Amino acid sequence: MDTPLRLLIHGASGRMGQALLRLAAEAPDAWQVVAAVTRRAPAQRVADGVPFFAAAELAAVPEFDAAIDFSLPEGFDPVLALCVERGRALVSGTTGLAPAQRDALEAAAQSIALLWASNFSVGVAVLNELVERAARALPGWDCDIVESHHAHKKDAPSGTALTLGEAAAAGGAQPRYASLRAGDIVGEHLVQFAGQGERVELVHRATNRDIFARGALQAATRLNGRGPGLYSMRGLLFGTA
Amino acid sequence: MDTPLRLLIHGASGRMGQALLRLAAEAPDAWQVVAAVTRRAPAQRVADGVPFFAAAELAAVPEFDAAIDFSLPEGFDPVLALCVERGRALVSGTTGLAPAQRDALEAAAQSIALLWASNFSVGVAVLNELVERAARALPGWDCDIVESHHAHKKDAPSGTALTLGEAAAAGGAQPRYASLRAGDIVGEHLVQFAGQGERVELVHRATNRDIFARGALQAATRLNGRGPGLYSMRGLLFGTA
Amino acid sequence: MDTPLRLLIHGASGRMGQALLRLAAEAPDAWQVVAAVTRRAPAQRVADGVPFFAAAELAAVPEFDAAIDFSLPEGFDPVLALCVERGRALVSGTTGLAPAQRDALEAAAQSIALLWASNFSVGVAVLNELVERAARALPGWDCDIVESHHAHKKDAPSGTALTLGEAAAAGGAQPRYASLRAGDIVGEHLVQFAGQGERVELVHRATNRDIFARGALQAATRLNGRGPGLYSMRGLLFGTA
Amino acid sequence: MDTPLRLLIHGASGRMGQALLRLAAEAPDAWQVVAAVTRRAPAQRVADGVPFFAAAELAAVPEFDAAIDFSLPEGFDPVLALCVERGRALVSGTTGLAPAQRDALEAAAQSIALLWASNFSVGVAVLNELVERAARALPGWDCDIVESHHAHKKDAPSGTALTLGEAAAAGGAQPRYASLRAGDIVGEHLVQFAGQGERVELVHRATNRDIFARGALQAATRLNGRGPGLYSMRGLLFGTA
Repeated sequence: MDTPLRLLIHGASGRMGQALLRLAAEAPDAWQVVAAVTRRAPAQRVADGVPFFAAAELAAVPEFDAAIDFSLPEGFDPVLALCVERGRALVSGTTGLAPAQRDALEAAAQSIALLWASNFSVGVAVLNELVERAARALPGWDCDIVESHHAHKKDAPSGTALTLGEAAAAGGAQPRYASLRAGDIVGEHLVQFAGQGERVELVHRATNRDIFARGALQAATRLNGRGPGLYSMRGLLFGTA
Repeated sequence: MDTPLRLLIHGASGRMGQALLRLAAEAPDAWQVVAAVTRRAPAQRVADGVPFFAAAELAAVPEFDAAIDFSLPEGFDPVLALCVERGRALVSGTTGLAPAQRDALEAAAQSIALLWASNFSVGVAVLNELVERAARALPGWDCDIVESHHAHKKDAPSGTALTLGEAAAAGGAQPRYASLRAGDIVGEHLVQFAGQGERVELVHRATNRDIFARGALQAATRLNGRGPGLYSMRGLLFGTA
Repeated sequence: MDTPLRLLIHGASGRMGQALLRLAAEAPDAWQVVAAVTRRAPAQRVADGVPFFAAAELAAVPEFDAAIDFSLPEGFDPVLALCVERGRALVSGTTGLAPAQRDALEAAAQSIALLWASNFSVGVAVLNELVERAARALPGWDCDIVESHHAHKKDAPSGTALTLGEAAAAGGAQPRYASLRAGDIVGEHLVQFAGQGERVELVHRATNRDIFARGALQAATRLNGRGPGLYSMRGLLFGTA
Repeated sequence: MDTPLRLLIHGASGRMGQALLRLAAEAPDAWQVVAAVTRRAPAQRVADGVPFFAAAELAAVPEFDAAIDFSLPEGFDPVLALCVERGRALVSGTTGLAPAQRDALEAAAQSIALLWASNFSVGVAVLNELVERAARALPGWDCDIVESHHAHKKDAPSGTALTLGEAAAAGGAQPRYASLRAGDIVGEHLVQFAGQGERVELVHRATNRDIFARGALQAATRLNGRGPGLYSMRGLLFGTA
């Protein structure tokens, strides 16, 4: 067994941060959290064997192989700068970045391996790849995307549905969308291609929000050792940038 | 084996009429077409063993047990009058009836067994029944209806989806609708009930338009021998009026 | 608002017991746990406002409206006796009861309202009802049951699939079974009726094990105030015994 | 518009042959049948504008661009020889070829473009490609294949399911199979990949047997102008041999 990947978890007190800590602890051969960074001063310096740091102490964190950041826009610049300074990979799912932050992220990709994504599900990344390939091979077939989420989700179509639609469009299809909001559905996406006398249906069903944390951990592992660049979940899985 | 049901097929040259003749011929123990009535004078008096009559000769048709009518509004009154006069059951799927014709139909139900329906699929009738029962047993669950039809269908939601929605509403649900138009899909209806942590999905898939003719033939058989009244596919299947 | 139902939770330290305590606490208007009974002496007499009792102290529990029991066969007799003595409803999901315990349970149903079930999902109970009705209305259609569960489940078909099969058979169908064991699927059951040119698919998807505790709580509410008898989830939902 | 592809239809009186003639006639800009070959002497030399030939007259057929063969093993050798002699592409779906015929087919691929397939559905070819890619990107996920066909189909799993399984295995998965035989289902295949908390489902639904003839016609078009080689539906669609 290889030595575990040393991780910095940035945004450790949020829902994703908590899930990352829990899942990393379940697979100590794969991941070792060497620093968990929270916005405010942590209640304990060490919890469950993991050293905690306040955001203000970021410069003091020990050596790590990759950082995973699910924080807020105001926390993003320091962790990006730290990764560039130390020459380490960064996986980020922080939303709401300003255009200048986007530019900084792209500039940083000149020197380190970077991945920013809105959806870290491995299955969704696979679906994106398959949808584009199917669209390309099935010109003239009708393409519909149906997404279902819990009744409290306000935006529609979901960001994931729109990304799937972009993949379909990249393959030449013209997708239409339908959205269902019902019960406590975590997230389901159907991309249907309908021809004459036959149909292809590509479906992703999420039943547990842990899949996003699990995907981010896997992304960190796959990113480690790669050269500088801006990667995507799909690219990491299918070998394209 | 009982003797076959003697049928009058009214509107025999239309798509449904043709399907009725073909399917009846495949099951001679169940149905015998004793008269096929077409709007204009038929090319042949007898075809494949079935006697043909022009609409103008309707009074001359031999004795029959039940009539099945898929014609036009202008052809409806004569066949209704004939069934009342002879005291025979009538199954009709003729669309576009005027209000006065609807009234005449209800009046006729005082003396003969009558069924008018917009969808003769046995499976759809079953789904209607199940949807109302599910809605009644699942108060507070979200109800969504998704229907898919071929790309050429213009109206949305489909009439069948609206009828399913009425069944759901009769059971206390507040259904929402989504419509897909794709490929050459004959017709699919999903009624989804979503609660917390679980879902019930009720689906009907039609793959062949023969199901409507087949359902009309079965309706004629079930109607034969019943007392006067206005019946529905669902009522005939589940023993309610 | 009515006063909440006063509950005795028997087997409070098990997985179902814990879920019952948590879900009841989330809806204090509906349920109030007046006694949580554990096999051994509880660590605390009161936790989160709920009084705890050891099984040996069962006679000392305060007045309650209904008991919910998810314990072990050796704990079943005392809680059954207590409910009979106090004239209170009992909901039990304890598995592995001996034939003599089954007999005692049936005898007790002469004096109190009782429900024993292997699956407390409301959705599954609804599916059972729908399956029997569909089977009855669709003679001659092929019936197939496909169930999917997590890779660690050893028995196949699932108990729930077999119960669905009994419902189908009660409606005259001859169901066949297929079982998938994959990933961490909580539980999915598809009952398909296939005719000529059309199909009806009835599906239940469980995404969260809380549905069983939630169903047991609802069963206690529905059982309260009913006369003596042995009830089923399906009977409580559809008004049959 | 280009000139239509000139086709030789070999086995023109069989079910596939009839469908090929009908579908080609519906798109005269794309395909022109210049010779329809039947085992026995045809009833008419020309029908619906298509010249018919008996198998014994094969050498006399006019110039063509590609041959499509759905005949019997005993008819295969002459049509293969003709295509080699004339340097024309051959699409064949004839089943039951002897090992020596297989060898001859591979040898012929040295000089002409050849495609032999057991399933000509474009959608199934797409699914094969997607399944292998998904399997490769999802190591460790459980893979299950569920296929449904009409009640009269005797073999199980279907040949198409086994081919999908080979694609999954080529991607590193270990597929398991389940087969349903029900109603008049034309053919449905589900390939499910199940991980922790998420699932990817890839489905093909056939509702009309014309898809096989349509796929064979498209294969002929795609094969025309290609260099010698043994092609597959999947290879023609995705640019691999």
